[in-house]
Amino acid sequence: MKNTIFVFKEGIPKYKQIYEQLKLYIENGNIPVNEQLPSIRQLADSLSVSRNTTLNAYEQLLAEGYIYSEGRKGYFVTEFEQSLFTNISSPVISNETDVVEHVIDFRAGAVDQQHFPLKIWRRISNHILTLKNSYQYGDPFGEECLREQISSYLFQSRGVNTNTNNIIIGSGTQQMLINLGKLLKEDFSSVIVEDPGYVGAREAFKFHDLSLESLPIFESGTDFSNLDLLMSRLIYVTPSHQSPLGVSMAIPERLRLIHWNNSRQGFIIEDDYDSEFRYTQKPFPALASLDSTRVIYLGNFSKSFLPGIRISYMVLPELLINQYKEQFHSFECTASLPNQLAMAKFMKEGEWNRHIKRMRLIYKRKMHCIVSELRSHFQQTVTIIGDQSGLFVLVKVHLNQSEEWLIKQASLHGVKVYPTSVYSIKNNSDEPIIKLGFSNLTYAEIKLGICLLKEAWS
Amino acid sequence: MKNTIFVFKEGIPKYKQIYEQLKLYIENGNIPVNEQLPSIRQLADSLSVSRNTTLNAYEQLLAEGYIYSEGRKGYFVTEFEQSLFTNISSPVISNETDVVEHVIDFRAGAVDQQHFPLKIWRRISNHILTLKNSYQYGDPFGEECLREQISSYLFQSRGVNTNTNNIIIGSGTQQMLINLGKLLKEDFSSVIVEDPGYVGAREAFKFHDLSLESLPIFESGTDFSNLDLLMSRLIYVTPSHQSPLGVSMAIPERLRLIHWNNSRQGFIIEDDYDSEFRYTQKPFPALASLDSTRVIYLGNFSKSFLPGIRISYMVLPELLINQYKEQFHSFECTASLPNQLAMAKFMKEGEWNRHIKRMRLIYKRKMHCIVSELRSHFQQTVTIIGDQSGLFVLVKVHLNQSEEWLIKQASLHGVKVYPTSVYSIKNNSDEPIIKLGFSNLTYAEIKLGICLLKEAWS
Repeated sequence: MKNTIFVFKEGIPKYKQIYEQLKLYIENGNIPVNEQLPSIRQLADSLSVSRNTTLNAYEQLLAEGYIYSEGRKGYFVTEFEQSLFTNISSPVISNETDVVEHVIDFRAGAVDQQHFPLKIWRRISNHILTLKNSYQYGDPFGEECLREQISSYLFQSRGVNTNTNNIIIGSGTQQMLINLGKLLKEDFSSVIVEDPGYVGAREAFKFHDLSLESLPIFESGTDFSNLDLLMSRLIYVTPSHQSPLGVSMAIPERLRLIHWNNSRQGFIIEDDYDSEFRYTQKPFPALASLDSTRVIYLGNFSKSFLPGIRISYMVLPELLINQYKEQFHSFECTASLPNQLAMAKFMKEGEWNRHIKRMRLIYKRKMHCIVSELRSHFQQTVTIIGDQSGLFVLVKVHLNQSEEWLIKQASLHGVKVYPTSVYSIKNNSDEPIIKLGFSNLTYAEIKLGICLLKEAWS
Repeated sequence: MKNTIFVFKEGIPKYKQIYEQLKLYIENGNIPVNEQLPSIRQLADSLSVSRNTTLNAYEQLLAEGYIYSEGRKGYFVTEFEQSLFTNISSPVISNETDVVEHVIDFRAGAVDQQHFPLKIWRRISNHILTLKNSYQYGDPFGEECLREQISSYLFQSRGVNTNTNNIIIGSGTQQMLINLGKLLKEDFSSVIVEDPGYVGAREAFKFHDLSLESLPIFESGTDFSNLDLLMSRLIYVTPSHQSPLGVSMAIPERLRLIHWNNSRQGFIIEDDYDSEFRYTQKPFPALASLDSTRVIYLGNFSKSFLPGIRISYMVLPELLINQYKEQFHSFECTASLPNQLAMAKFMKEGEWNRHIKRMRLIYKRKMHCIVSELRSHFQQTVTIIGDQSGLFVLVKVHLNQSEEWLIKQASLHGVKVYPTSVYSIKNNSDEPIIKLGFSNLTYAEIKLGICLLKEAWS
């Protein structure tokens, strides 16, 4: 540490630069484990910065577990296993250009890094790169070995009886909806979407200038009362776990929807984006398992494996598959070929089932943790919505404050929380509903976050 | 020319500096049209460099059409209205799957597996999976760290002066063309495509129901004679290395095309899909380097790294970038996030440049091998097209046999060769042209393949 030279850059807070530099030294082993760091005052003096600056840097390192404090003795470098090191959480980096540094970010859409099967995935990925197939162009509709695995997984886990020929692999729900829309817009000029619902799907339908009709969703479930008054014969739904309200469609509703659709000769687009993570019962069967004649089933590996892997799939009914293949046979598959091959092997070796099982338990515990924290801090001030499945929970806040105020207050207390009003077309909630993702937070972070939220909203 | 002073910089080959300087003089009109350049010896002496150095510089200028040679008289500056030079080089991919087991498959679209930087790529990929970023959703327009690397690569290697903000990362040329088409179809109802040309691009334009006009391409180059008669203001071209005929657009042609496009207020879509592999000279500068106001530049890592990695990019001009971002800000990026991060690190560490350099040499040797084999076995029976660049070569077969017969005969002898007629709209070759990819074949395989081909066609 004695020879450490800091050259401060312009435009970046000094505490952050100190923090970054120290982190790097620790990661690279330049500062040995259990070595004592200079005191806050010593470091401040030697760098000619304020004590507050060095204090902030140390606090950040402390919070992230790079160092530990021994009361009055000072700060020491944490003992860690090199490979595990990066699993110790650091602040979530958000896409939004945001000036505020948040201590806790309740962003949904990340997965638990600590329990990712890193070693197994590395082994498989490394092996895949020795195969000749990895050096060529792949199948335009996705690698057959992966389609096989998906097919048997869907049968076991979702009751969907399909075959490799009807599965199309793509690189995300929206990318697949764009392709699908090309086909469907020949026969359909509008589509029914959930309100509130997944914005990404709506945007993909707008890509093809399909007009939108809306199906109201409430905390109590989907409102089917006006279904027969809607003009469209195409409907996009998230029946297993509605996005964002978290409700699930019960069997009578599912059957009703299928019947309605069949009688209209329409198509249901079933987005089953995170059905793996249901905590109270086993996952509900997919619509496509009840009657797949006119159901287009969409799934992906974003929530269950890695959002960035960009592998998704759809199961097309017999009525569409040939037309789809004719339309897209000269289009390259957009999903990474080595990743597809690795995922196929990962599934074939049984690792996928083990991973899902493990993660379900972990996320269940985290869900339980956030729900208890919310209950104990807020009691009747909030209503918890959607705590039976998924990687986020919603809270309806009975404080007579706007969504904007709630988010802003949280932010001022170092907590980033998310709105749900953005998902609505016209079916707005009477009281604000806040979205809290927790998948990549530790229990300690969840607890701290809810505690800070309590302060923020008091 | 007499007062020309060259001050050589460190670290850049001298021939390249001479070439750049002369190019600049010619472009700026400092050396008048048809003026004779100093001889190779004179220039070498006056600059105190070897004759080989000045020869290389002249050859590059000659190949790109800046100068012409008049036999023993010497070298002269090209008149820019004329299209004097065209360079023969080569083309791209094929998706077909086939049941027959072939001994040798001259399929294009694979890359050399043996020289893939497996260890380095593994190390980097493994590291990437320890980063927190890998467990989240990424930037909808691609990771900034990769856009930064692409930006500096494009500047160094292709002369394209852009910035991270104008680069969009996608998962393949077609996927990007589909997105781009959404924007362009507002103002354009048709597009000019090369004939013969890349089928994938035509399909992507058809996705948006754009009608196609065709620009005839011959072994001798692009036929611009009817350019002014075409109605479209949108044109898709592969100027560095035409797909599939392998010709390169000389500078006068490039300037003419840009001028034509600017006067029409149209857009040129420049697909620079494999410009890294030019064997006789350094890669030609991109159209987008000459004038990027109305040029949309497309590039990818398929030929130069791995076809299956599905990372591509486009550089959008200022006229389009904001509109594009507005349209697509709620769409997820379709390229794998860990792969993007790994590629960024691979480039940042200098591995990308080393890889390209190494592969250029390897492919050059393979090209040399296949060309010598073809010459020695077939002599005047075939004409070799496109042997100056790319990962395949074309042979025009003077045997009075159909393309179909040639492919079938080859197949019966265990050799899979590929048609080029599929690339044509109406501009069909008078004699069949067969496509032979060699990138993932060993020298022995290439030799055996050509030997078998000789038998098959005898």
